[in-house]
Amino acid sequence: MTTIIDGKRLADRLQNELKEQIANDSLRTPPGLVVLLVGENAASQTYVRNKELAAKRIGIHSKVDRLPAAISEKALLERITQYNVDPAFHGILVQLPLPKHIDEEKILNAISPEKDVDGFHPLNLGKLFLGKPEMIPCTPYGIMKMLDEYHIQLEGKKVVVIGRSNIVGKPMAQLVLARHATVTIAHSRTKHLAELAKTADILVVAIGRGKFITKEYVKPGAVVIDVGMNRDENGKLVGDVDFEEVAPLTSYITPVPKGVGPMTITMLMIQTYEAAKRQENAR
Amino acid sequence: MTTIIDGKRLADRLQNELKEQIANDSLRTPPGLVVLLVGENAASQTYVRNKELAAKRIGIHSKVDRLPAAISEKALLERITQYNVDPAFHGILVQLPLPKHIDEEKILNAISPEKDVDGFHPLNLGKLFLGKPEMIPCTPYGIMKMLDEYHIQLEGKKVVVIGRSNIVGKPMAQLVLARHATVTIAHSRTKHLAELAKTADILVVAIGRGKFITKEYVKPGAVVIDVGMNRDENGKLVGDVDFEEVAPLTSYITPVPKGVGPMTITMLMIQTYEAAKRQENAR
Repeated sequence: MTTIIDGKRLADRLQNELKEQIANDSLRTPPGLVVLLVGENAASQTYVRNKELAAKRIGIHSKVDRLPAAISEKALLERITQYNVDPAFHGILVQLPLPKHIDEEKILNAISPEKDVDGFHPLNLGKLFLGKPEMIPCTPYGIMKMLDEYHIQLEGKKVVVIGRSNIVGKPMAQLVLARHATVTIAHSRTKHLAELAKTADILVVAIGRGKFITKEYVKPGAVVIDVGMNRDENGKLVGDVDFEEVAPLTSYITPVPKGVGPMTITMLMIQTYEAAKRQENAR
Repeated sequence: MTTIIDGKRLADRLQNELKEQIANDSLRTPPGLVVLLVGENAASQTYVRNKELAAKRIGIHSKVDRLPAAISEKALLERITQYNVDPAFHGILVQLPLPKHIDEEKILNAISPEKDVDGFHPLNLGKLFLGKPEMIPCTPYGIMKMLDEYHIQLEGKKVVVIGRSNIVGKPMAQLVLARHATVTIAHSRTKHLAELAKTADILVVAIGRGKFITKEYVKPGAVVIDVGMNRDENGKLVGDVDFEEVAPLTSYITPVPKGVGPMTITMLMIQTYEAAKRQENAR
């Protein structure tokens, strides 16, 4: 029997709970999130719009700072420096990708670690690595919440993560390792990938290739988490996993859409609230 | 045919090269390393003594700051703050373990990241995680040097690291991942460990249990790296690998002693020199 993990329903519930917490909280200022959006990338516009809507629904004060694609690196850095000391904003997010003339790493490193709600600053990644996370990249954090919601045990389990990005694959591996799973990080240079993936009790796929994972990659009874968001030839949103073929084999699987996606934005909101509480306590 | 990786010989050569570099360099002050040694732990005394001797041989100005076991956390933190701004020392190392009344994490986080020659500060671990390391924990760094010296390829290879410490196992995994290996991190809660280890092209063992790895754990032709330093019932230094039993199976293997050990101290000296150069350039 396959259980389809309902990321949308869990995200809705967590967002409602968060809304209530914020409404009942005695914070002096409402949690605030500023999103810096540079240029006119269409996908980025959509992502940012979704963040704005979620924040509004939940009671998080949000601002989108729209900046021209031609903005200099220096000007963008100055902008971040301003927000770093602005008490109205507890979270700062720079929507990626940035225009090519701007050094992404330099920009991300300029965000004050305590306002880094995306969890991309090296100091926050270092704390995650040490097993003492403060800010966690939102996608793997959301996946952990889903696994917990469905009581999927990690201790002693074999987890294979396909994809080694700094924002999904690598932090995902650290999170499951901290929960005593045995973890393998695989990627485009991995040999015999299907054979390896088939050893996984829990398979997390973040490779960005539509329907790449077919039944040859999946052990019967495995848990499959699909981080992919791809458009197929008809413009339809599909995951990295061939859901129709793979789902019947699995014990649990996330669909696309309504799987990992809604959880990512939810964790961003939760981290913004947590950051606001920490910053208020520190004052 | 088995090749025994001669860590001692490589370490000697690298130390000689470093000595020459330092002698010919035009640094305004010699590279300086301060080691803070708290209390009377016998093993720590030996380790620190070895570091002092290596530094002296190479031409690194070193100081051992011996502090009483009863020192307060606050006093130790103040000491570190002083060294953070002392231009005579480019590297600061706090010998672990610390007495129980002192929070190790707090102490390590207090070391200025640019002087953190052990590579244990979360900011340095975060940079390593991002694939842009500045300071690297010395043991895995030394292992990478050995693999390179013996032209052992990593790309596409399956590496299994047994042990998930913050200073060996976890950074080791990041380093081989950055070189395009497929990496698995295993540990005490891993099930079917022998079976898993036997899939490794390169097996790195850091579990701290003498002669634990027997031939059941090793694929014929594998490369085996032994990080263990244990005393057997006769007080003899032994690794985590049963060398006599395992060596004939392997293509390359590190012995204990004269394997990984001498490389660790060498990388510490190299990083101190690199830190000195960076700090002088930044002034």
